[in-house]
Amino acid sequence: MLETIQRHQATLDTAIKALHGRTFYAAFPENPSPEIYGADADRLGREAFESLRGQHFTELLQPAPEQWVGQEESPYEQQPLGVKYPFFSPATLVARAQAGFDEWRRLKPAQRAALLTEALDGMRSRFFEIAYATMHTTGQSYTMSFQASGPHAADRALEAIAAGYEEQTRFPEETTWEKPMGKYNLTMRKTWRAVPKGVGLVIGCSTFPTWNTVPGMFASLVTGNPVIIKPHPKAVLPIALVVAEVQKVLSAYGLSPTICQLAVDADDRLIARELAEAPAVKLIDYTGGSQFGEYIESLRGKTVFTEKTGVNSIILDSCDDLAKVAQNLAFSVSLYSGQMCTAPQNFFVPAAGVRVGAELVPYDQVVQTLADAVSGLVANPKVGPHIVGALQSAATHERVQQLAFEGGRTVLAHGPVAHPHYEQARTCSPTIHEIDAARIEQFSQELFGPVMLIIKTRDTAESIHLAAHLAREYGAISCGAYTTDARVKEQIMDEMSLAGTPVSFNLTGNIYVNQNAGFSDFHVTGGNPAGNASFTNPEFVIKRFTWVGFREPA
Amino acid sequence: MLETIQRHQATLDTAIKALHGRTFYAAFPENPSPEIYGADADRLGREAFESLRGQHFTELLQPAPEQWVGQEESPYEQQPLGVKYPFFSPATLVARAQAGFDEWRRLKPAQRAALLTEALDGMRSRFFEIAYATMHTTGQSYTMSFQASGPHAADRALEAIAAGYEEQTRFPEETTWEKPMGKYNLTMRKTWRAVPKGVGLVIGCSTFPTWNTVPGMFASLVTGNPVIIKPHPKAVLPIALVVAEVQKVLSAYGLSPTICQLAVDADDRLIARELAEAPAVKLIDYTGGSQFGEYIESLRGKTVFTEKTGVNSIILDSCDDLAKVAQNLAFSVSLYSGQMCTAPQNFFVPAAGVRVGAELVPYDQVVQTLADAVSGLVANPKVGPHIVGALQSAATHERVQQLAFEGGRTVLAHGPVAHPHYEQARTCSPTIHEIDAARIEQFSQELFGPVMLIIKTRDTAESIHLAAHLAREYGAISCGAYTTDARVKEQIMDEMSLAGTPVSFNLTGNIYVNQNAGFSDFHVTGGNPAGNASFTNPEFVIKRFTWVGFREPA
Repeated sequence: MLETIQRHQATLDTAIKALHGRTFYAAFPENPSPEIYGADADRLGREAFESLRGQHFTELLQPAPEQWVGQEESPYEQQPLGVKYPFFSPATLVARAQAGFDEWRRLKPAQRAALLTEALDGMRSRFFEIAYATMHTTGQSYTMSFQASGPHAADRALEAIAAGYEEQTRFPEETTWEKPMGKYNLTMRKTWRAVPKGVGLVIGCSTFPTWNTVPGMFASLVTGNPVIIKPHPKAVLPIALVVAEVQKVLSAYGLSPTICQLAVDADDRLIARELAEAPAVKLIDYTGGSQFGEYIESLRGKTVFTEKTGVNSIILDSCDDLAKVAQNLAFSVSLYSGQMCTAPQNFFVPAAGVRVGAELVPYDQVVQTLADAVSGLVANPKVGPHIVGALQSAATHERVQQLAFEGGRTVLAHGPVAHPHYEQARTCSPTIHEIDAARIEQFSQELFGPVMLIIKTRDTAESIHLAAHLAREYGAISCGAYTTDARVKEQIMDEMSLAGTPVSFNLTGNIYVNQNAGFSDFHVTGGNPAGNASFTNPEFVIKRFTWVGFREPA
Repeated sequence: MLETIQRHQATLDTAIKALHGRTFYAAFPENPSPEIYGADADRLGREAFESLRGQHFTELLQPAPEQWVGQEESPYEQQPLGVKYPFFSPATLVARAQAGFDEWRRLKPAQRAALLTEALDGMRSRFFEIAYATMHTTGQSYTMSFQASGPHAADRALEAIAAGYEEQTRFPEETTWEKPMGKYNLTMRKTWRAVPKGVGLVIGCSTFPTWNTVPGMFASLVTGNPVIIKPHPKAVLPIALVVAEVQKVLSAYGLSPTICQLAVDADDRLIARELAEAPAVKLIDYTGGSQFGEYIESLRGKTVFTEKTGVNSIILDSCDDLAKVAQNLAFSVSLYSGQMCTAPQNFFVPAAGVRVGAELVPYDQVVQTLADAVSGLVANPKVGPHIVGALQSAATHERVQQLAFEGGRTVLAHGPVAHPHYEQARTCSPTIHEIDAARIEQFSQELFGPVMLIIKTRDTAESIHLAAHLAREYGAISCGAYTTDARVKEQIMDEMSLAGTPVSFNLTGNIYVNQNAGFSDFHVTGGNPAGNASFTNPEFVIKRFTWVGFREPA
């Protein structure tokens, strides 16, 4: 075990340093290139994925399943994947988690951190397999599937390990306390323990099955809590592969694999509520809709981290090059068909137009430039299909196709986006609607999917006010703003900071408001109703354990 | 302002270092000696206090009071103090707090930390005045009044300032992020802000009006939140003096004094609920009974820190010198007549007795030794009255006098403790009752005041089980244990750590389970129902602000 700790210590130290420097750092290269991952890595990963189709998933070290279940289907093929997972009742899962608690909590933080970092090496060896699994459950493009579910997720997991390790070792394990009492010194030996809270439950979402799951999973684990991973029933395979890698490491070191379990819903029985309400479950990480998220937050006696829905805004005030801005925003709204929690939805444009250099470009021309950029991007057969991917669920597809607004104007209608390899791909190009700023009820909710709302405001002050108001009241995870005016910029920073929303200013070229970088950008702030699962600020880890001290005369 | 920051930087740096080293540190000497605080300090402080009796308290920089209110009385004199405070309606208090928010949050953490440290210097200059105010509102002895409300409180306040400053400066204000993209680098300028949550409310208790108030008060302030201090209506003056000192510094630096306001209940109108429910109030620190504490915790959209009631245990297994142990415990149970949140209540003694060295001392003899130690201590006219102090409230006095148990046996009856200077002092010596371990309903609640319950258990294993069970289910803030057996010790540490309760082992001599040391002992862990207001772990400060990031192409 000492050797294992030493082997991973440099990675951990570098990660902690990166967390605090917040300059660029990635432990896992995001480029799926043969030079980095090996000439056969992609092929082997695809073959491994293909061999799982229609099979029982037997890798998990969780004995005696009650039945075999599975309901995934590929958004590209609109066919079942046919993978079947072992099902266990919540009572069994919780009892097994509790059974593993003592041995796991008694390890030192450095031991847990090393074992979990080793599990990420295992995950890395399966990045391509995870990528195909992600593509055929979420509808993400190949590249996004690789990056988001592989290296980016692993980096966020390493972040959580590093942050958890750092916080648990921030106070001494032992010290001598010597108080001068005048004629003598009072001397005490004091020790402290970072005590884990109990069983952790991590409830995943259908669109980012590993990226949104691994931070809470590894944060709970590194702080000594056994975890039960309850994925969305339509996106199990990517995280099942990660759980299998963690179990492999646990088992190799003589620990109980049930310290980290997969909990799959049966086809006719959803188990999230029962798990969440189990008294032994003390920590819950949740990604998904706000309604269930609020139920999770309402449970007494649980420490909860959520990422729920929100409405993300773009504020257009002034810029140097409108075409470049429009291209950047068209990409952001099209990327994975708006199914990212960071995708922009509401685009606030002043009625008087947008100042571009010395010129004032009229409102209508701004709208048309945006619409042209979107349609140009999506219609480009070499680019469009690989950006928009597929819609994860048929329900989203149907809802987006039936979207209707009172008043306003449809600027761009949705339509299919032909995929070069998958004829059956469930696709839909972005819809653009124009709505008056007064119709706030029409743009104050998240419209999940490829929807761009252009909201005509009196001026930038109203744009800022509305963006901040929506973030405060309904939540927001990202905000983009374009302004060349330093005073307006400060006003946006000030108001959006109070609304707990990070802002990307003046993005053009190859960086997008949707993206955030591990070790640098905090994802979700906790400052608005979109949630408090901030990857990875100190709060995300320290609430998972308790400091308890002991003392005795020396 | 720069000069102010420089002047206090060394204090702040030392405090941060102390927080992490957790060795002995005190910025404010606890000894009320003329050599330290000046030859006239005690006399001047007493005179200053005396001059406030029967007067309007006009120091606060809060204009236009709606009325003058006050209902304090001295537990030593059982006479009203007659001090009248300005009353403001909750709406006025909240509006004024909000009006001060912008200027306060826009200061840098280093500026706020320096101003608040300066306010502690002002508090230090009034330690003796605060001591007399504390004595004549809480009933604490002179020495405890000085130490707890003066230097110990100021140290805990400095802890909160230091922890808050450190956490807010843990990530860079600005950095350049440069990502290699193959042929070029993507370069972003990134900045972060620690954004305060909003108005803070601090609800104080009647027994430790500054010690339990200043940590939350200074933690909220240093993180940029204006605060409203709502003391217990019977213990206003000590904290009013502290608030006045903070306001003095704010005003001297051209800031609004309403960044820190005193909010006193009117004689016929309690305002805590109205303040707590105000939408602008985002942070609440609460010390007091569990019922109101649970109401505070149930409020949605608030970040809450509580210290509620608990039942503290002593586990007697084995020791080297029973007489010394009994003396130590007698002192602990008598100190301020059991009105400390850390006072022990339940003493678990195995039916077979306690092993003392090579000998097994029978149960009855252990009980008698404890009772003799208590009665000997209290009956000593030179010591007793100065240890037990007075009972803060007539209600506690009455309740303790009427305590009745089903079954069991009264080992020692309560009685008055004559005070050498105050004939009218409201005193009551500790009551000792013996209860069988099966009657858990009789010892599972906090019996506030001088009450010692001796619970006969089957063995030490049952003692540990009961102590941990009570802590987990009903809360505990301290635990004392006596054992010479390393295995038993580890078992106690393990079980009590899971119950979120710190343990003091084998205390004899001049250190007591009730006491905890600033910069070293975490007070309250968050790991059981007694509360989560942990002085001062990182969680106690980081939940008061939100990290928000901004980025822009460089």
